Amino acid sequence: MNVKLVSYTRDGEKVVAIASKMSRSRKGWDYHEKTMTDEEIEVWIRDAILHGYWSVLEHSIYTFSIEGISRVASHQLVRHRIASYTQMSHRFAKPIDEYYKPITPPSVEKRAKEIIEKAYQEAYENYFKLLQDGVPEEDARYVLPNGVNTNIVVTMNARELYNFFALRLCSRAQWEIRAIAWKMLEEVKKVHPRLFRYVGPNCIIHENFIRNEPITLDDVLQKDNIEFISQRCIEGVMRDGILKCIRNSKHVLEYLK
Amino acid sequence: MNVKLVSYTRDGEKVVAIASKMSRSRKGWDYHEKTMTDEEIEVWIRDAILHGYWSVLEHSIYTFSIEGISRVASHQLVRHRIASYTQMSHRFAKPIDEYYKPITPPSVEKRAKEIIEKAYQEAYENYFKLLQDGVPEEDARYVLPNGVNTNIVVTMNARELYNFFALRLCSRAQWEIRAIAWKMLEEVKKVHPRLFRYVGPNCIIHENFIRNEPITLDDVLQKDNIEFISQRCIEGVMRDGILKCIRNSKHVLEYLK
Amino acid sequence: MNVKLVSYTRDGEKVVAIASKMSRSRKGWDYHEKTMTDEEIEVWIRDAILHGYWSVLEHSIYTFSIEGISRVASHQLVRHRIASYTQMSHRFAKPIDEYYKPITPPSVEKRAKEIIEKAYQEAYENYFKLLQDGVPEEDARYVLPNGVNTNIVVTMNARELYNFFALRLCSRAQWEIRAIAWKMLEEVKKVHPRLFRYVGPNCIIHENFIRNEPITLDDVLQKDNIEFISQRCIEGVMRDGILKCIRNSKHVLEYLK
Amino acid sequence: MNVKLVSYTRDGEKVVAIASKMSRSRKGWDYHEKTMTDEEIEVWIRDAILHGYWSVLEHSIYTFSIEGISRVASHQLVRHRIASYTQMSHRFAKPIDEYYKPITPPSVEKRAKEIIEKAYQEAYENYFKLLQDGVPEEDARYVLPNGVNTNIVVTMNARELYNFFALRLCSRAQWEIRAIAWKMLEEVKKVHPRLFRYVGPNCIIHENFIRNEPITLDDVLQKDNIEFISQRCIEGVMRDGILKCIRNSKHVLEYLK
Repeated sequence: MNVKLVSYTRDGEKVVAIASKMSRSRKGWDYHEKTMTDEEIEVWIRDAILHGYWSVLEHSIYTFSIEGISRVASHQLVRHRIASYTQMSHRFAKPIDEYYKPITPPSVEKRAKEIIEKAYQEAYENYFKLLQDGVPEEDARYVLPNGVNTNIVVTMNARELYNFFALRLCSRAQWEIRAIAWKMLEEVKKVHPRLFRYVGPNCIIHENFIRNEPITLDDVLQKDNIEFISQRCIEGVMRDGILKCIRNSKHVLEYLK
Repeated sequence: MNVKLVSYTRDGEKVVAIASKMSRSRKGWDYHEKTMTDEEIEVWIRDAILHGYWSVLEHSIYTFSIEGISRVASHQLVRHRIASYTQMSHRFAKPIDEYYKPITPPSVEKRAKEIIEKAYQEAYENYFKLLQDGVPEEDARYVLPNGVNTNIVVTMNARELYNFFALRLCSRAQWEIRAIAWKMLEEVKKVHPRLFRYVGPNCIIHENFIRNEPITLDDVLQKDNIEFISQRCIEGVMRDGILKCIRNSKHVLEYLK
Repeated sequence: MNVKLVSYTRDGEKVVAIASKMSRSRKGWDYHEKTMTDEEIEVWIRDAILHGYWSVLEHSIYTFSIEGISRVASHQLVRHRIASYTQMSHRFAKPIDEYYKPITPPSVEKRAKEIIEKAYQEAYENYFKLLQDGVPEEDARYVLPNGVNTNIVVTMNARELYNFFALRLCSRAQWEIRAIAWKMLEEVKKVHPRLFRYVGPNCIIHENFIRNEPITLDDVLQKDNIEFISQRCIEGVMRDGILKCIRNSKHVLEYLK
Repeated sequence: MNVKLVSYTRDGEKVVAIASKMSRSRKGWDYHEKTMTDEEIEVWIRDAILHGYWSVLEHSIYTFSIEGISRVASHQLVRHRIASYTQMSHRFAKPIDEYYKPITPPSVEKRAKEIIEKAYQEAYENYFKLLQDGVPEEDARYVLPNGVNTNIVVTMNARELYNFFALRLCSRAQWEIRAIAWKMLEEVKKVHPRLFRYVGPNCIIHENFIRNEPITLDDVLQKDNIEFISQRCIEGVMRDGILKCIRNSKHVLEYLK
C-alpha cells in the first residue's frame, strides 16, 4: 500500500484563517492577506474547529494517490460521498502479470498464508482462462478476488478529512481502510500541522465537543495522564478502555512495515 | 437480480408541479394544492424538464431494494454520490450456504459457464477454509469473487435518476448496472409516467436540449422514423448508429429473463 | 410565518428500520417487510441514532412549504446544502399589494415598531417608483428590504434534519430560522415520533454521543432533574446554563403566536 | 465589484490529466508525474471534457474572494450547492460608515439613479435608528436593502465551475451574478487556459455534446462564421439568435468598467 499526498492547497492554513476572519470583518481579502500573522492563523483555525465552525475548513483541499489497495477497501472508501474519486478501471487496465498483486490481510498472513496464496493463484488462472475464451475484461473480472489490487486518486477537503478520520481512525474500522486513514493523516500533518492538530477518531472529536480544555490525538498517543469525561465512545467502548483502543487502532501501521 | 421500488413520494408528480409553480407565484401551497389540475401538472413537469429547470425534480424521491447483484455492480452504483445507500455488509452477513449466489455475466454464460462455476466453487471453498482457520469474516472475504452477490437499498430523487439513467441506460455502461437501470426505469414509469417521460440515455437527453420538438425513449424504441439532429452522441456513436445503439442497450433485459 | 409538512415518506420509520436491518442480514426486503414488528422498528431506529449510524436515516424524506419568512431567513436556510429548495422568485412574482408583508423581528416589535413600519413603507414606495420608471422587477427589488417576505419549498431527509435541528434549535441561531426549526420539528414529530425522538440542539446531540443513558429534548423541556455530563456546549455555554439556554431557545414560538 | 482568484490547485491541469490517465493505466502517480508531456496534458483534458468524463475535473479547485456584491447576488450564488462558502455576516460585521456601499443595477443607473440613492439613504437612516433604539444588528438589518453590499469567499472545483458558467454566463442570468461569472472566468482562464477552453453558457456546452468538431466561447466571441447545429438553446433562443445572445451576455462587463 502506498499513500501519497500529490497535490494540496499550498497556503491552506492561511486560506482557512482568512476566510474565517472575513466572516466577522468588513475588510477584504487583500487586507487580511497582508496583515495576518502566524499567531492569528493558529487562533482562527483553533477557534473554528473547537466551536464546530467546520465550513471554513472546506477551503483547504488535498489530493492523494492511493495505490495497491484492495477493492474491498476502495469500495468502502468511495462511500464517503463528499469527495472526488478517479479509480483504475479493471474494464480497461487489466491486472495481469506483475500488476496482479492482491492484498493479504494481516490476520491471514499469520494463520493461513498458503490458503490465500492458492486462492489468489486459482482466481488468476480462472480469470485468464475466461479472457482466452473471449470473455471481455469487464466480465472476466467477476472471478477476480475482492482482494485484487487497485489504485485510486482521492480529493477531500479538510472538513471531510476530519469526518473521514473520525470514522476511519477508529479501531472498529476495517484494518485496511484504517491503515489508509493513518497514512493519509501522516501526510496532511506534515504539510498543515495546525489544521489537523485536533483530528482523531470520534471518541476524541466528541470528547472535545463537550470539554473545556481540548485534548489531541498526539496527547492520547504519548501521554498516560489523559482522562476522558465521556462515559463511553459512540461505538460503545467505556471510558476506561478508550485510550487503549486508540493505540490499538494505530498498530495496523506496524504490521504494514 | 431483483429490483423493487419499495417506497416513493406518493404524490411526487403533483409535488414537483406545485413547487415549480410556486417559484413563479405569490400564492401558497394550499392554494395550488386545491386548484391544480392534472393537465397543469403535466405542463409544469414538461416545461421544467425541457428547459433544464431540474432542481424541482428533487422533491420527488424513490427508494429501491436491489437484490442479488454483484459487488462489481454495487461498486459502480455507489459512485453516484447524490443518493443514499445501505448495503448488506459481508463483515456481518456471511454469504454462505444458499446465500452464496455469485452473478454470471451473459458473455460467460454462453461461452465459459463451466469455468466460472468452477471458479466460484473454488473461491467458496477457500473462503470457508479461511473461516475455519479462524480468519474473521471481514478478512476471509478477500478471496470471495468480485461477482459475489449482495443486496443494497438505494434512494435517489427524480433529478438524480435522470442523471443516473442518462449514464447507465447507455449501451456503453456495463451490462449489469445497465440491467439495473432498465429495471429501475420500469419501476418508476409505472408510478410516475409523466415525471419520467423524457428519461433516456445521454444521446436522447442531449438531443432534447437542442431540439424544438422533443423525442422520447418510447418513440425511439417503437418508431422507425425518428431522426436525430445530433451529429454524434457524447460517447462517439455517429447519428446513423444511435437508434440501433439504444435498442441494443435494452436487450440486456431479455437475457435476464 | 407558516410552516407546513406537505409531503413525506409515509412509511419512513419502517423504511429506515428495514434498511438498517438489511445491512446485517442476508434476507431481502420482502421478508423484513412482512416480519418486522413495531418493537423492532423502534429498536433499529434507536440503535442507528445512538451509535451514529446516520446514513440509514437518509431513506426517510420530508418536504415543507415555508411561507411568509424574510429573505434574511431564506438566505440562511439555503446554506444547508444537503437539501432541495424551490424559492418564490422576486424576478417573476412581484411582492406587491397584499403580497407585500415584510417580517418584523420580535426585538423591533417591542421597541421600534413605528420605525420599521415607516422603513418598510418607504422601501415599498421606492420600489414602486423604480417599476414605474421602467426598471425591471429583478433590478427594482434591490431597494426592497432584507425583511421582505418570501415562500420556499424545502426537502430534507431525516439525517439532514438532525443536523439542521442541531444547529438551528440552538439559542445562538437567529430568532427567525430558529422559529422555523422549532415549527419543522413539531411537524415531523407528529408523523414520525420514533425517528425524531433524539433530535435536539447540538448540546443534546453531543451529550448523547458520550453518555450511557441518552436524554431527549422532551426530557430537558419537561423535567428538572436532568444533569449534563458535558462541561460546556460547543457554543461555549457552561454545564449549569445549558438547560435554561434550551428553554430560552424555544420561547421564540410564544412570541409568534 | 471585485472578483479575485486567491488560491487554486497550482498544478491543476496536470493533476486532472494524470488522474484521467490513471483510470486507464496500471502504473502509479509517480510514473505519470515524471513522464507526462504538455501535449499529453492537453489531450487528456480535451478528451475528458468532450466525452463528458467530468469527474476528473473535480481534482482541480479554485477559491475566489468576491467583494462588493449585493445580497441579491450572494443569495443566488449560494444556491450552487457543490461549493464552499464563507460569507461576511451582517450579524457581526455592521455595514456602516464607509462600509455601506449598496449596489446600483445598470438599468437603474441609467434611468432612476436619484430614486435608488434616496432609497439607499433612507434605509441606512432607518437601520441606524433601530440600532440606536437598542435593536441588535441581526434584527436591524431587516430594513437594509437587498442591494446592500457583502463579501463572500467561494471555493469550487473545475467541474462545478463548468456547470456554474453554463448557467450564469447565459444572458438569461441576472446581470450581477452574470458579471461575477464573466469575471471568475477571466481569472481561471489566466491560470488554466487548457482546462477552461471549452467553458461556455449552456448553448455552447450542449452544442458540443452533439457535434463532431467542438466550438469554443472564444470562437463565438471573435469569429463570424460559427454555425450552430442546435435548433434552439435550452432557454428557447432559436439558432439564429444564439451568437448575438452570447455577445450580449458579456456586455455586462463593459458597464462595470
